[in-house]
Amino acid sequence: MALTLYWGSGSPFSWRVLLALEHKRLPYESMRLHFDKQEHKSPQMLKLNPRGRVPVLKDGDYVVFESIAILYFLEVKYPERPIFGLSPEEAGVIMRVICEFQAYAEPAVQGIVTAIFSGGLATDDGKLTDAMHVVAREARTIEGRLSKERWIVGANYSAADMVIFPWLQLLRRALARSAAAELGARFLPMERNYPALARWIDRVEALPGYERTYPPHWREP
Amino acid sequence: MALTLYWGSGSPFSWRVLLALEHKRLPYESMRLHFDKQEHKSPQMLKLNPRGRVPVLKDGDYVVFESIAILYFLEVKYPERPIFGLSPEEAGVIMRVICEFQAYAEPAVQGIVTAIFSGGLATDDGKLTDAMHVVAREARTIEGRLSKERWIVGANYSAADMVIFPWLQLLRRALARSAAAELGARFLPMERNYPALARWIDRVEALPGYERTYPPHWREP
Repeated sequence: MALTLYWGSGSPFSWRVLLALEHKRLPYESMRLHFDKQEHKSPQMLKLNPRGRVPVLKDGDYVVFESIAILYFLEVKYPERPIFGLSPEEAGVIMRVICEFQAYAEPAVQGIVTAIFSGGLATDDGKLTDAMHVVAREARTIEGRLSKERWIVGANYSAADMVIFPWLQLLRRALARSAAAELGARFLPMERNYPALARWIDRVEALPGYERTYPPHWREP
Repeated sequence: MALTLYWGSGSPFSWRVLLALEHKRLPYESMRLHFDKQEHKSPQMLKLNPRGRVPVLKDGDYVVFESIAILYFLEVKYPERPIFGLSPEEAGVIMRVICEFQAYAEPAVQGIVTAIFSGGLATDDGKLTDAMHVVAREARTIEGRLSKERWIVGANYSAADMVIFPWLQLLRRALARSAAAELGARFLPMERNYPALARWIDRVEALPGYERTYPPHWREP
């Protein structure tokens, strides 16, 4: 086994895989690519993933990309410390929650985060407010799950947590910008508006290896 | 085991699961819901899936929805006649191709099909032409795979075929409408433009049980 992960700092898709590798305690070579230098679009990277996107995982000569596919590959190949549940029923719920997040929440979260970081808030024609409503509704559903259980699906940290967590951190970071104060007013502070979600974030942050997954450029001044 | 599938005729998401159940030769109670009567939003259905969407699978008292999650649950619970490959490496490719289809092709296909069936072609502002370019590009990639292999991933019929096939049938049906002639000109006939894809469609249509998965309302005059 020789795992190499190509990833980018702040990419929520990359972060998922870093969380999974740390949870499974798999040793991996960490290849951080710099988006600003277009390293993810280099000829070598396009050979691995013609779409020029990260994360990309190499396992020996085998290459896999698309974050959910990487999580799934890791689970089938390295089943210890499972991330897709302990039973078929749990596996179904974990995948269902992931699919729901991708279908109903992710486009809205992505729209908001992109608008804030690209300075596109000023030209908002109401779409971002609509997106924020969607996010608030989906967050309430997850808040409901987490007020009854320790992790998003049941008693164990799973791929569902890994898929959703990076977007929540990105959203929190984006909404904390002063320009986004109005948009974020009903979301932040999470401790007040979504207390179970806030405690869950603390719990993920306390996991062993978490520090190695944290976007390094977020620490830079 | 007592499987019940709630589905709608012509829903590509439902069709995927019907294909999987037939392939795995699992007996199931087939509950067709009529979208025009809003049966998928009935109080009983909303209890099973609060989003009021199909497909929904019941296995005894267990309920799962979101088509990919249903496929995955079926695979873990009933591993015979596998649909996610015979090795971790194949599993990774199958899930990768599914994720790519969902991320890069599905929104475009869905936009085109919806516009044609809802009579929205007349008000097209170029978005549909753009979507058609995306679909053509993604179809060429799949055409490339199928010109080398019998199924979308390798030697066996898999979840990747089941996920993509219903959308292709729906797209072909939509583009065949006379109002869509211009939009479909470079796609149809598939036998000429995408010969490997056309042969693959024939191959799926020849599978045992296929007739039971075919949208019944497509046969109605």
